[in-house]
Amino acid sequence: MKDLEEKTIVKKDIYKGKIIDLELHDVSLPNGNTSKREIIQHPGAVAVIALTNENKLVMVKQYRKALEKSLVEIPAGKMEKGEAPEITAMRELEEETGYSCESMEPITSFYTSPGFANEIVYLYFANRLTRIHENQALDEDEFVELLEVTIEEAEEMMKNKQIHDAKTAYALQYIKLQRLNQK
Amino acid sequence: MKDLEEKTIVKKDIYKGKIIDLELHDVSLPNGNTSKREIIQHPGAVAVIALTNENKLVMVKQYRKALEKSLVEIPAGKMEKGEAPEITAMRELEEETGYSCESMEPITSFYTSPGFANEIVYLYFANRLTRIHENQALDEDEFVELLEVTIEEAEEMMKNKQIHDAKTAYALQYIKLQRLNQK
Repeated sequence: MKDLEEKTIVKKDIYKGKIIDLELHDVSLPNGNTSKREIIQHPGAVAVIALTNENKLVMVKQYRKALEKSLVEIPAGKMEKGEAPEITAMRELEEETGYSCESMEPITSFYTSPGFANEIVYLYFANRLTRIHENQALDEDEFVELLEVTIEEAEEMMKNKQIHDAKTAYALQYIKLQRLNQK
Repeated sequence: MKDLEEKTIVKKDIYKGKIIDLELHDVSLPNGNTSKREIIQHPGAVAVIALTNENKLVMVKQYRKALEKSLVEIPAGKMEKGEAPEITAMRELEEETGYSCESMEPITSFYTSPGFANEIVYLYFANRLTRIHENQALDEDEFVELLEVTIEEAEEMMKNKQIHDAKTAYALQYIKLQRLNQK
């Protein structure tokens, strides 16, 4: 087993933002040479698979400025400082969709872009949904459209790229695997 | 259907780097208010599911400075300017693993972090591998350890978080779904 570690020699804070920070590290490589690493610090996020009593997947459509287009995704949001991920998951589900759930079951977690960012997504399954309010309770700069679709409709949306993000793609495969394993 | 678009009023280039650029956009929101969006521009990447003749998954272990630890992932790499993704996929597979393949079959693509970055990953399946050289041909600042594991071993590595990134998590589910559907 080689020692692959890259040790920071100098760290430069390039930008401290509302959601992300950018750091530039001069690192020493395993062979003794040096290189630069651009790193995005992110607070981490949660995402929620929520199925209604009619077995429809609760989804949100929102404008993604980085892509200059709207995507349909499973409900998600970034963690507040000191907030446990399952609490974030409950809060985001309720704010974005008006649904509450009996419990949040952890499914898995993954780093989204380990090559340049430390963002981690904790994925949950929302057990037993209840509609607690008709309206969403969004942040003041958040505009989100609620959708409820069958898995077949979601797969069609993945084909035509209305759904086009890693966490939602993972979630759809997860649901299909669960169903095949139940057969 | 609401118009969710967020129009840029002012764009500020904060940082232009080797791999990522950071931009800060003042945007006008659907309700007429304004907000700020922090955006990472990334050239996009490819990732490759490569199974050996013994049905083992070809994987690479590398240090991820953003996480300050090593992860085991499927072979991947960022696209060079003007390079078609399947060419990048062939090149990265060969450089990181010493394997060539007969053809690269596109599986899907996804944005990894649409909330703040435009990074897209094109996922391929490498058909019919051939070992073309014993050694890797890595970039001068790239240190990568080659692994070949069964799917069961990969799932165990996912449980203990040696595997912990979105594209590899997606790839493992993809392989399981293929196998269940072939039964």
